[in-house]
Amino acid sequence: MHAAQCAACTKSGPAKYGTTNNTHRVLTISICGRPCDSALFLQKGCCTNRVTIKTPVRILFIGDIFGRPGRTLVKEKLSSLAKDQAIDLVLANGENAAAGFGITPALAEELFEMGIDVLTTGNHVWDKREIVDYFESADGNAHSPARRLLRPANYPPGMPGRGVYEGRKRDVPYAVINLQGRVFMAANDDPFRAADHLIKSVKAKIIFVDFHAEATSEKIALGWHLDGRITALVGTHTHVPTADERILPNGTAYITDVGMTGPYDSVIGVKKELVVGKFLSNMPTRFEAATGDARLCAVVVDCDDQTGHAKTITRLMVA
Amino acid sequence: MHAAQCAACTKSGPAKYGTTNNTHRVLTISICGRPCDSALFLQKGCCTNRVTIKTPVRILFIGDIFGRPGRTLVKEKLSSLAKDQAIDLVLANGENAAAGFGITPALAEELFEMGIDVLTTGNHVWDKREIVDYFESADGNAHSPARRLLRPANYPPGMPGRGVYEGRKRDVPYAVINLQGRVFMAANDDPFRAADHLIKSVKAKIIFVDFHAEATSEKIALGWHLDGRITALVGTHTHVPTADERILPNGTAYITDVGMTGPYDSVIGVKKELVVGKFLSNMPTRFEAATGDARLCAVVVDCDDQTGHAKTITRLMVA
Amino acid sequence: MHAAQCAACTKSGPAKYGTTNNTHRVLTISICGRPCDSALFLQKGCCTNRVTIKTPVRILFIGDIFGRPGRTLVKEKLSSLAKDQAIDLVLANGENAAAGFGITPALAEELFEMGIDVLTTGNHVWDKREIVDYFESADGNAHSPARRLLRPANYPPGMPGRGVYEGRKRDVPYAVINLQGRVFMAANDDPFRAADHLIKSVKAKIIFVDFHAEATSEKIALGWHLDGRITALVGTHTHVPTADERILPNGTAYITDVGMTGPYDSVIGVKKELVVGKFLSNMPTRFEAATGDARLCAVVVDCDDQTGHAKTITRLMVA
Amino acid sequence: MHAAQCAACTKSGPAKYGTTNNTHRVLTISICGRPCDSALFLQKGCCTNRVTIKTPVRILFIGDIFGRPGRTLVKEKLSSLAKDQAIDLVLANGENAAAGFGITPALAEELFEMGIDVLTTGNHVWDKREIVDYFESADGNAHSPARRLLRPANYPPGMPGRGVYEGRKRDVPYAVINLQGRVFMAANDDPFRAADHLIKSVKAKIIFVDFHAEATSEKIALGWHLDGRITALVGTHTHVPTADERILPNGTAYITDVGMTGPYDSVIGVKKELVVGKFLSNMPTRFEAATGDARLCAVVVDCDDQTGHAKTITRLMVA
Repeated sequence: MHAAQCAACTKSGPAKYGTTNNTHRVLTISICGRPCDSALFLQKGCCTNRVTIKTPVRILFIGDIFGRPGRTLVKEKLSSLAKDQAIDLVLANGENAAAGFGITPALAEELFEMGIDVLTTGNHVWDKREIVDYFESADGNAHSPARRLLRPANYPPGMPGRGVYEGRKRDVPYAVINLQGRVFMAANDDPFRAADHLIKSVKAKIIFVDFHAEATSEKIALGWHLDGRITALVGTHTHVPTADERILPNGTAYITDVGMTGPYDSVIGVKKELVVGKFLSNMPTRFEAATGDARLCAVVVDCDDQTGHAKTITRLMVA
Repeated sequence: MHAAQCAACTKSGPAKYGTTNNTHRVLTISICGRPCDSALFLQKGCCTNRVTIKTPVRILFIGDIFGRPGRTLVKEKLSSLAKDQAIDLVLANGENAAAGFGITPALAEELFEMGIDVLTTGNHVWDKREIVDYFESADGNAHSPARRLLRPANYPPGMPGRGVYEGRKRDVPYAVINLQGRVFMAANDDPFRAADHLIKSVKAKIIFVDFHAEATSEKIALGWHLDGRITALVGTHTHVPTADERILPNGTAYITDVGMTGPYDSVIGVKKELVVGKFLSNMPTRFEAATGDARLCAVVVDCDDQTGHAKTITRLMVA
Repeated sequence: MHAAQCAACTKSGPAKYGTTNNTHRVLTISICGRPCDSALFLQKGCCTNRVTIKTPVRILFIGDIFGRPGRTLVKEKLSSLAKDQAIDLVLANGENAAAGFGITPALAEELFEMGIDVLTTGNHVWDKREIVDYFESADGNAHSPARRLLRPANYPPGMPGRGVYEGRKRDVPYAVINLQGRVFMAANDDPFRAADHLIKSVKAKIIFVDFHAEATSEKIALGWHLDGRITALVGTHTHVPTADERILPNGTAYITDVGMTGPYDSVIGVKKELVVGKFLSNMPTRFEAATGDARLCAVVVDCDDQTGHAKTITRLMVA
Repeated sequence: MHAAQCAACTKSGPAKYGTTNNTHRVLTISICGRPCDSALFLQKGCCTNRVTIKTPVRILFIGDIFGRPGRTLVKEKLSSLAKDQAIDLVLANGENAAAGFGITPALAEELFEMGIDVLTTGNHVWDKREIVDYFESADGNAHSPARRLLRPANYPPGMPGRGVYEGRKRDVPYAVINLQGRVFMAANDDPFRAADHLIKSVKAKIIFVDFHAEATSEKIALGWHLDGRITALVGTHTHVPTADERILPNGTAYITDVGMTGPYDSVIGVKKELVVGKFLSNMPTRFEAATGDARLCAVVVDCDDQTGHAKTITRLMVA
């Protein structure tokens, strides 16, 4: 919801989006608070004008989609969520889509069909081996859907896949960058310098970074390091949403972790008795995805397509 | 605020606490919504009865108090916060009180004087060496204030200090247990079994656990493991509040991390340029506490003193 | 070979073992240097006396037996090695016996039949699930061969199997203790205190410890901590023999790592191109045991059965 | 000692070096085994010829010089060791020279004066802050002695100092490369690719690599990866000499760890009671260098200056 002034009666109030025309939306504004649409407005005479208001680009980023419960929830909720929130661009981390461990080409395309524009991943990206062929299927083919699946950009040079995607949505260019942390994780290339390098190479003003990392210090530090140079840095990997979403001073939206989209009656997605058992025994345990209490965790970032700066970041948890 | 029924007029509405009598409080109830106290009630005639209503025990746990900014904020806010929220028991993690690294006896006592009943700590507990003497000053003296400073209970046997405190507040017995995680942290004794053991040894129904740990999986797993046997398990250490507070099915309040009480214009409390510099250089860096954007992060847990079960957990961020 | 004095001619020189009678051996001594046996001695008249000399107990510890190449080499070499070296007791770490990952009951018994008295393990002990049943088959049956397979003693309480074995060989009581390190490894119980506790509980003077650990500091520190209280502490796990074998001042034999018994044309047993590939790609890799350049790494420890103190430790690498 | 044939009498036997002329040495050969020099040879008539024999380049690499005990031992032993062993080039790891933690400019130059040509380091390189200025003093000055102190080449770009040195000794060009591992250590750039890159950039045939790393797997893997492209890869950091020195199939000398040059009555150089105490308490401990049982651990590598391939690698431990 955006505050807006009615072009007819000059009263201010919450605005409900109507149809959109690229990034310039045609808004129908109801100040009286009744459910309304443009037809109603014309009848009731309260707010008779159709006004064209420049609105921010609105990006939805869905946290780590975990197994079938996560995928099902996205399928059930994404369409109406995107409509209600007037989302322009949908991003998601999909590295746990396949029963918690990795993602297959079929699942990636299923998620694209649900309305996700670009999928990021992380340390589980190679868990399903067929993903290597999928990545390689996009080599030399800029229009392959496989281009819209990313793996962290700071993996060793020459690995299958890419860590950055540049696209257009509603005629607005944007880039998505996927990076992975190194604290308490595998030794990869420096994510700070990788980010510096990629940001320079990208033409879009809107740059959205998924930093898949464990340590709060590394995530926050990269947020500050990139502040003003990217639209948003959101953390993933810990599967727990943090309550520290904010706009950094130079215009970058930040949150340490978006949280998981999957079963919260679990330990980070896995059946809780299996994980508790492992902590008690230190024995190898085959982890299985839990099923209960599925929640979709996400953030909505509003940004200016001219500067690429974020205006707001809002945390969502949808059950 | 608690919903209550007016004993005079039988209307229901939010209740404002008046004076308390142990865990049974004398409430004066204003349904009309005007600011009121018992004197006013009597005058206005709206709600003339003084009623005695059994209310839950309300515990405030303040996340890692970091350096002077954290201490100052506690000093400024705790008194009114405790009053407004009708807090019965105040707990806090104080391991970063001394410029981010450890705690001194003087700082511990300063925090006790501000109204904190029990202080927990974690991996930084030994950073200031004088704390060893402070711990040892309480040996054989159950009434020493030093007893109210804890270090993780699953440290090696024989170390200075204790990891559990049993006290009474408003005549209600309670226990506080401090534990430390092992994932991505130093190798200490098993916190799961340490918790099992301590819970059995404790007589109070109300048992509050601060689990100072890094990994979300370990924190969540211990939460499930202890569900129904303790009042609350709150995580500390990452300095970022999480948005996953909930009451687990068997009555334990849970949150993965309470977050830090200190400067948020920082990287987990430290001047951000120092931490970013360290990530870029990998060179040893003397960390200094930041100062800006001080926030107090805490949770309020309501619980039943007969069962020890939690009823609600509410996250707070006070600037 | 032990220096000895001929009972007949009083000349000193190297002594060749003949038959043994428990720990007191009947030696036939050849000072002239020719190959000889007791029959020959009697004929040649050089050294006519059969003398009874008290000799130390000689223990062979074979480093991590890795896959088929390791098992084959043990099969080929152990019998003659034990005879040539006059070994009294044969110990080995068998946690990599099953293609590098774990050990099965069948492989354990195969190794016992080759002449190994007690098998130790480490972090790979649970890799083959059937080993759990094997451990449990020994519960309540002190004479089960499964008793002679150990897992680290400082695993969580209640896990299958045991970490200490007490037996007799040639009528001399001995104990074998298996421990695992915590630096750069899974969080288990404190190996220092576990060792203290077990040493007190054991009646034998001869106590042999396999400390399966990564960090040199932890291994050396435990060696010093136990010096004089055990016969020997040998390290395993890194699969590389160290050249620091020594007798610590109070009589404990020590070596940081015995090294691997398996294919040295490899990276710690695994096909080298797979491990190099993993370092270059950070991608998950199915490790397969290598085959070339099999070597048996071991140490021989001589000790006094009255004091339990070690006299010598000698490193062996047999190709 | 090299086997040689006497140019006069054609008998073969051990050769004793006389004076040298760059890499071509003038040898005086004694087959009779008596102490001899060229004057004696001429008198005795046994081996009358002075012969010029092409000999390999002989490199001494001294393992981590730890504190004063290490420095003193180098001072006492290096000169005669270099003479006895006819060493052409002396390399050493000096990162623990300053009481175990880092190195100062004064200590570096003291070690250069003792006869060390190039010093490598590792994770402790920044422990003494003045070393930064020392590194920077060599910027733009190829002949500064500070050029001969290296830090790992795979540190972040732009850090003070360099990770490769190219020099000449006895007219033979050589290069020394210093790298650091990433397993169980700080996240730096990929040492495998850094090595590939540096080896290509270096002109010398003789390339000596000090890989300062913890895990045996990473060291062995890099050895195999570089086999045939470098003269030698020696490991440092664990402070324990390994007994796995060998010439890999394509001509690279390899050892997992050279071991420490310092007090072995210690835990990797530190007073043993302090380290044992730390393992028992998990409390912060100020580590002090031990003093007893100083040993110099090193390897001698013979190589061919035309191919850069190693012929032999020999482990030394000098007390």
